[in-house]
Amino acid sequence: MLDWNPALYRRYEDERTRPAQELLARVPLSEAARVVDLGCGPGNSTELLAHRFPQAQVTGTDNSEAMLASARERLPQARFELSDIATWAPQDQAPDLIYANASLQWVPDHETLIPRLFDALAPGGVLAIQMPDNRQEPTHRLMRALAAEAPWAEPIGDADKLRTQLLPLGGYYDLLAPKAANVDVWHTIYQHRMADAASIVEWVRGTGLKPFVDRLPPDLQASYLVEYERRVNEAYPARTDGKRLLAFPRMFIVAQKKA
Amino acid sequence: MLDWNPALYRRYEDERTRPAQELLARVPLSEAARVVDLGCGPGNSTELLAHRFPQAQVTGTDNSEAMLASARERLPQARFELSDIATWAPQDQAPDLIYANASLQWVPDHETLIPRLFDALAPGGVLAIQMPDNRQEPTHRLMRALAAEAPWAEPIGDADKLRTQLLPLGGYYDLLAPKAANVDVWHTIYQHRMADAASIVEWVRGTGLKPFVDRLPPDLQASYLVEYERRVNEAYPARTDGKRLLAFPRMFIVAQKKA
Repeated sequence: MLDWNPALYRRYEDERTRPAQELLARVPLSEAARVVDLGCGPGNSTELLAHRFPQAQVTGTDNSEAMLASARERLPQARFELSDIATWAPQDQAPDLIYANASLQWVPDHETLIPRLFDALAPGGVLAIQMPDNRQEPTHRLMRALAAEAPWAEPIGDADKLRTQLLPLGGYYDLLAPKAANVDVWHTIYQHRMADAASIVEWVRGTGLKPFVDRLPPDLQASYLVEYERRVNEAYPARTDGKRLLAFPRMFIVAQKKA
Repeated sequence: MLDWNPALYRRYEDERTRPAQELLARVPLSEAARVVDLGCGPGNSTELLAHRFPQAQVTGTDNSEAMLASARERLPQARFELSDIATWAPQDQAPDLIYANASLQWVPDHETLIPRLFDALAPGGVLAIQMPDNRQEPTHRLMRALAAEAPWAEPIGDADKLRTQLLPLGGYYDLLAPKAANVDVWHTIYQHRMADAASIVEWVRGTGLKPFVDRLPPDLQASYLVEYERRVNEAYPARTDGKRLLAFPRMFIVAQKKA
């Protein structure tokens, strides 16, 4: 079972919180009684939700006890529950907002999952989703290429399969549009300024690289990370100020149920 | 001399104002004394600026008298000036914010223009730019393809050259990063929901298609638009709700001068 390192994840919290804010900014609700943060992580997104909807009962869910402990410490007034998104359902009344920031990419079967979450909303409710869409970026192509090479291929195996293959953006629109009052979908490709190749590796170690590295024994972890950083260094050349620009595409979906 | 149709441009005002808002949301200033809106059009972006910086002297510039008349009617308290961005310079004190929403793509020589605008800022000031980056989208590839075919090719000539070829996003970063306190660059690819192919044609007629159509006599305008709409209809298939999704990539640049 994977578990997460809240401290490592939080190191780039500003960059990770920006998409959460931009997703929330597009939620067309002036108030909400019940709000759910699916895959709340260390609670940075839950805090945004509690601030935007101060009257709401806000519930964060995560499948990591470490993340939940970190979230409870951060936001004692919210409710946090251990649960898997794949089987999650509202316990009592239907929520007005189901918000999933950077979590659904770890959950399979989007063709059934996404309509099921939408159907769980109260009338007029909103489903708001953000997912990294960076599988074709050099960071992710390189981690897969290396994972197919000896001596790392055998222990890593099918680690790549842990992450769900996203639908094209229009596919999410097609799933939701016939049943929604309106659906807004878009991509933002952020360009994060990173000090050097090591910082880029550190960034992806907190998320996408984790399933690969976790399957390696310590000596192979070390050699994998050295070679990975060497290739990242070539793929992200220094800009005129010496920094590297890490392109990071993210997909956004905001769908509102008929009232 | 091209002139603009404010009513046509305003028809998709919500969609056109969203990038202006998202650009402004990333401007890291809590206050500003002097704000300039370069290429203000009918004043929708100027209104956002006046609202965000109520204490500021806000000046909108445009090279279209029709747009300026529309802007003055909308926002009587702001100052509006006829001028060309290519030769624009602050008349008295240096501005704290130079804001250019969907205008610099009509101005050539970005390698000299962009640093010149940045240098015109007061210390700690911000240059904020948004430009459509849709030359490789079907809408724009199709208008060029058609403009290369008889009977339209001869009258249209080099209309495509009226629009500046943008640098890659990293090129703008490279121009500004060595002299800036910080530079933030990103893309957002909006997906506008359009009723049908005719609506997509109407959208681009307000901007990108204009230089092409303006050079045609009336009968060739009509035949060009019929054939263009036919090809747009094929390139943007109907979604599950019958709507078309018009992908619209936009480039954003926010650079702050050292204090």
